[in-house]
Amino acid sequence: IAAMTSAPVGRTAGRTVDVHASVAVPVTTPDARCREVLDGMRGRRFESASTVAVCAADGTLTGMVTMERLLAAAADTPVRDVMDAEPPTVTPATDQEQAAWRAVHRGESALPVVDEAGRFRGLVPPDRLLAVLLAEHDEDVARLGGFLGSSSEARSAALESVGRRLWHRLPWLLLGLVGAFVAAGIVGAFEHQLEEQVLIAFFLPGVVYLADAVGTQTEALVIRGLAAGVSTGRIALREAVTGPLLGVLFAAVTFPVVLLLWGDLRVAAAVAVALFAASSIATVVALALPALLHRLGRDPAFGSGPLATVVQDLLSIVIYFLAASAILT
Amino acid sequence: IAAMTSAPVGRTAGRTVDVHASVAVPVTTPDARCREVLDGMRGRRFESASTVAVCAADGTLTGMVTMERLLAAAADTPVRDVMDAEPPTVTPATDQEQAAWRAVHRGESALPVVDEAGRFRGLVPPDRLLAVLLAEHDEDVARLGGFLGSSSEARSAALESVGRRLWHRLPWLLLGLVGAFVAAGIVGAFEHQLEEQVLIAFFLPGVVYLADAVGTQTEALVIRGLAAGVSTGRIALREAVTGPLLGVLFAAVTFPVVLLLWGDLRVAAAVAVALFAASSIATVVALALPALLHRLGRDPAFGSGPLATVVQDLLSIVIYFLAASAILT
Repeated sequence: IAAMTSAPVGRTAGRTVDVHASVAVPVTTPDARCREVLDGMRGRRFESASTVAVCAADGTLTGMVTMERLLAAAADTPVRDVMDAEPPTVTPATDQEQAAWRAVHRGESALPVVDEAGRFRGLVPPDRLLAVLLAEHDEDVARLGGFLGSSSEARSAALESVGRRLWHRLPWLLLGLVGAFVAAGIVGAFEHQLEEQVLIAFFLPGVVYLADAVGTQTEALVIRGLAAGVSTGRIALREAVTGPLLGVLFAAVTFPVVLLLWGDLRVAAAVAVALFAASSIATVVALALPALLHRLGRDPAFGSGPLATVVQDLLSIVIYFLAASAILT
Repeated sequence: IAAMTSAPVGRTAGRTVDVHASVAVPVTTPDARCREVLDGMRGRRFESASTVAVCAADGTLTGMVTMERLLAAAADTPVRDVMDAEPPTVTPATDQEQAAWRAVHRGESALPVVDEAGRFRGLVPPDRLLAVLLAEHDEDVARLGGFLGSSSEARSAALESVGRRLWHRLPWLLLGLVGAFVAAGIVGAFEHQLEEQVLIAFFLPGVVYLADAVGTQTEALVIRGLAAGVSTGRIALREAVTGPLLGVLFAAVTFPVVLLLWGDLRVAAAVAVALFAASSIATVVALALPALLHRLGRDPAFGSGPLATVVQDLLSIVIYFLAASAILT
């Protein structure tokens, strides 16, 4: 018996459970008595002894039994009577975060890994699951916050020097800076409309903010859904409906308010139409960008956070000025 | 022996470890032999048997020993020789997320709880630590994403109906809608400057975006730092320096670029000054808002995400137009 691996969990770790599985765990057969199992564990070194794998003679996993159940059972009880015969299992290729999520939601603190034939390949022990969840948490917050993934360790990121701080932040901010110049170019293309009706400029920040807020909500859903094993496809339809619905609500509120407070029917209509269109597109962008990056062989997580915000903001500016141009001329 | 609690972990759970501590765990004395401890656990029901608490006669926790070490040790070894004599401990009032963080970073999968006098009060078992980490993760992503905290359960949030989706999103979006009208009012106050020099409007989205991006990074640091037990105070000084430094970098890039591409010295200066000022203030706002909410008796976490974004965006608009007014007149 030897541990398959002791690779550190964190930013450099693989994203699948295979690097976390340990074979230095107790294994028994369904017919063994609880006492025999407990006796047989004495004097041996395990990486994790909290759960015992129950395997048939051919190595197929037939169940799992926790130390707590082994201790509580009568000494002569066969393991098959106290084991969980349908434990949640994962394959070596399962995403590590989904595996951890599944374990937690089944109330398990260790997770057996089986191959395609159902043979036991090892156990992801509790301390590994904990480390995976913590690392993924740090990574998500770093991504949404616009840090380089490599600074995802919470404590060090919070306390690192000003120089390293700048280094971990600048890449995404430089993207934002380029975005700012592109935005200026887009607004400049509609200079004529702005000069004719300066009121258009009043609502530019609001339209950009609201569409971005809708998209950010979708991003959060996708990130959390992926962790829980929910595919983007299952989220997509409802999100694609939610965007336009929110857009209708925005339009229904802004049209009368802008008309009442600023007294311009056409600008009010342009703002309402732009909010509807931009909100409708925001959920689609938030769903499509990670999928697109995945197709391009990039980490889909980069489709959340700063990149998505910049793309969405530029789209919103285009949409708003197109709507204003169409309605005002 | 009875479990102190079996309260569900999640959004409704308390934020401290006391609700997670179990007393249905094995307890022994430092002088007991490993064999005695293992024998004594047979036939008993524990909530968690992965770690044994080692306590003196007066109930003071003197160490912790894992099941793995008990099994590996020679039968006659006293527990004191194999126990961890300085385990990481928490008090019942310790924040649950910080507790989980500490356990993971010490490589522990269970965490003893002791009172002020050092007496053992229970053990937070691995499955509880896992559940805490998952719940806090969901909560952080929901907050940053602009969802109601009550929809923080990842899987259900990803799959809930369109109606509930709207319900969980609308509160923060309505705040954004109010912010959009306030923004329009602020821009309107500078209508005269905009009519004189429409070029100002070109850089409005960029200034707002960049200051917001800087603030979002600080928010992410605060959220992750708090989880890791790093106080906002320790983050504050370096962040207060980082903001102006980023502002100087932004100004140094934008001034020549705006001057070169748009050919207006005064607008270039206004954009540069505004980016410097807005970035400097962004980190302060991101640090101060959670602290302010805490003072007002509100959850400081609401200082991250949509509320912080709206406040920062409005501030940036004011700063930009003040800078433009001062330089252009």
